[in-house]
Amino acid sequence: MISVREAREIISSVKLKASIKEVSFDALSGFVLAEDIYADRDYPPFNRATMDGFAVNSENFRGGMKFRIVAEIPAGFSYDKKINSDSCVKIMTGASVPEGLDVIIKLEDSEELPGMNDEKFASFHLESVKPFLNIAKKGEDIQDKAKLLQKGNFCSPQVVSALATLGITNVKVTAPPSVAIISTGNEIVSPESDPSRVQIRDSNSYTLCEFLKKYNIKPEITELVPDDPDRLRESIKRGLEKNILFITGGVSMGSHDFVPAVLKSLNVTNRFHKVGIKPGKPFWFGESRSGGVVFALPGNPFSVQIIYKVFIENFLRNHVGLSDTMSLILPMEISREKKNNLDEYFPASIVNHPGSAPFMKPIGHNGSGDIRAGLYSDGIGLHPASEPVLEKGSLSEFIYW
Amino acid sequence: MISVREAREIISSVKLKASIKEVSFDALSGFVLAEDIYADRDYPPFNRATMDGFAVNSENFRGGMKFRIVAEIPAGFSYDKKINSDSCVKIMTGASVPEGLDVIIKLEDSEELPGMNDEKFASFHLESVKPFLNIAKKGEDIQDKAKLLQKGNFCSPQVVSALATLGITNVKVTAPPSVAIISTGNEIVSPESDPSRVQIRDSNSYTLCEFLKKYNIKPEITELVPDDPDRLRESIKRGLEKNILFITGGVSMGSHDFVPAVLKSLNVTNRFHKVGIKPGKPFWFGESRSGGVVFALPGNPFSVQIIYKVFIENFLRNHVGLSDTMSLILPMEISREKKNNLDEYFPASIVNHPGSAPFMKPIGHNGSGDIRAGLYSDGIGLHPASEPVLEKGSLSEFIYW
Repeated sequence: MISVREAREIISSVKLKASIKEVSFDALSGFVLAEDIYADRDYPPFNRATMDGFAVNSENFRGGMKFRIVAEIPAGFSYDKKINSDSCVKIMTGASVPEGLDVIIKLEDSEELPGMNDEKFASFHLESVKPFLNIAKKGEDIQDKAKLLQKGNFCSPQVVSALATLGITNVKVTAPPSVAIISTGNEIVSPESDPSRVQIRDSNSYTLCEFLKKYNIKPEITELVPDDPDRLRESIKRGLEKNILFITGGVSMGSHDFVPAVLKSLNVTNRFHKVGIKPGKPFWFGESRSGGVVFALPGNPFSVQIIYKVFIENFLRNHVGLSDTMSLILPMEISREKKNNLDEYFPASIVNHPGSAPFMKPIGHNGSGDIRAGLYSDGIGLHPASEPVLEKGSLSEFIYW
Repeated sequence: MISVREAREIISSVKLKASIKEVSFDALSGFVLAEDIYADRDYPPFNRATMDGFAVNSENFRGGMKFRIVAEIPAGFSYDKKINSDSCVKIMTGASVPEGLDVIIKLEDSEELPGMNDEKFASFHLESVKPFLNIAKKGEDIQDKAKLLQKGNFCSPQVVSALATLGITNVKVTAPPSVAIISTGNEIVSPESDPSRVQIRDSNSYTLCEFLKKYNIKPEITELVPDDPDRLRESIKRGLEKNILFITGGVSMGSHDFVPAVLKSLNVTNRFHKVGIKPGKPFWFGESRSGGVVFALPGNPFSVQIIYKVFIENFLRNHVGLSDTMSLILPMEISREKKNNLDEYFPASIVNHPGSAPFMKPIGHNGSGDIRAGLYSDGIGLHPASEPVLEKGSLSEFIYW
């Protein structure tokens, strides 16, 4: 049986063919940039006032001096006339600072004084000023044609905001892979059905669909299939036409676990079957002839959640150019024992104590079939294979759901 | 000027009228439950085999004893005949354990032996067994009619999974509030436009739209309005028909900052104007006559991001019954200075060092107008008002974007 690390390495060595599509900048959430993004001009595009106040020339400035106000410049307007050394302009935040002026003295430090013939003057409660006080200099944030974003960036609100600023209203992203999900098991009925005493409703395909939404992946096929080799074969064959086929159930040791044999008969190359992980040990992974992949997961609800978070999400992220989900190394709030030599993942909550960095707190449950197992947690913690006890205060890995 | 804490208290004292709507369980992402969820039967619904193996009665079990195999029970089937003390059944994971049997001995610990006349026997490599080995007992996870989920729960993949299991295919959630967004400023043009030398493109309304998507809020109005009191009045009047009106720009001290006066003229009660926060100090908050709220934000892109995360997101979360966004208390990776007496928020990344809990690392930028400010960070850190220096290693608050 291979370790979690070995299984991760095998999965990450397999690459799907990526395709690109163009998406409007206001429909980017969940996508990842497939092109680098460059500035279309300097930012700021002009010397920009960062305060409401008066623009003066720092070399001409003396404490107590009165300046003639020759113009008022709101944001969005420019003033191109020459400005004498005894003059200033009133200027608003966001406006372009006229040529020759290099300081904004904010309104709070200024006084407006009436003069004759509608003239106005300003004096200031400052003794001296330094060049570029309250001015964002043209090009200081990024220069024209410089790279602002690398491909592989997740389209966060910040990225969308930057694209809007740059006027990039269509952008190339990695297209979501096509996906099929097959939920197997004679005992499984749809959520709309009334199960018999010994049946249960399908939840796994919905769990996977929900997880996949984060990356804009919408499965094209979701099927419920009984433990019947012929019907499985038919469904799996259809599923193999997609880039990724997820199967839940039917991968264990039981005499009705037909999935591995059917996959083999359809020329799917098994890369591993069984991983040293709890829950989720019977996890099966393979590659199809057509360049697709198959993730066949054990059928317990919590096993599906764990296998998705530990293996599948990173495969999806790497496919679009993102790095693995970030884990946090956190101290345990209480100690935790285990009796196996597997990497065990448990539901955990983040707990804050006043004046202290956060802890992770394991949430108890009755095993991978417990419908409550993932419900009340912020994410999952790792109890490493080699450690029978994770002591209170000892550090281990935590991943947010 | 009020503090961040005072502003939060004022905002959280204001409640919008909440309305409820019903949503299909597979379209719940981003919604929050507006009803408690109860189990529709015991879970597990029957004594469930958690391993593939043989079911026996623990009291009849002796090491080395041979049991006659009287049936094979796949998941989804039941076996209701009486089972003699010298007999067992072969059983698959997920199947219902027949009455009178209380142990599953897994296949790995078992041997199947042929007998005469197609009879089959099983013997086991165990000396003794304890009751309920490898059986999940009926009702041990949750009992019929017990509460599984409280209203106010975010509809995570785990929640959707549980609803599928329970057969709850329609569920009550809090309806998203209606929203209008007005982006003001003479210098602002749409992302599709070619700005003049002194103009810039609107990004703030897109930033807000992206943030709001997480809670399934889709603004019904988004408008670009110049700094013109009459046109502003017209737009704001329309915006006030929505539950929440966001305005960006026009709230500072400049002579073209008409927003507060226009809001006043439309009978919007100002609850505060200016908060001791950087960036975002000119933040304005008020309540309309019709029970709506107005968030008027300064126009710099990073200010909008900060005000959203520090104030607005919690208002939206509380409205649907969620608690505030969770912050982490993390040590600083490097020290950080500031020159004001405001609560200063800065973009920060989470940094992992081998064998250590995470640090937060401030990301440098040129101020709240820097289009890069939020781009390369995992979230925001707090540099509290009273501390001129946040020393390396000292703890402070971090919030994920």
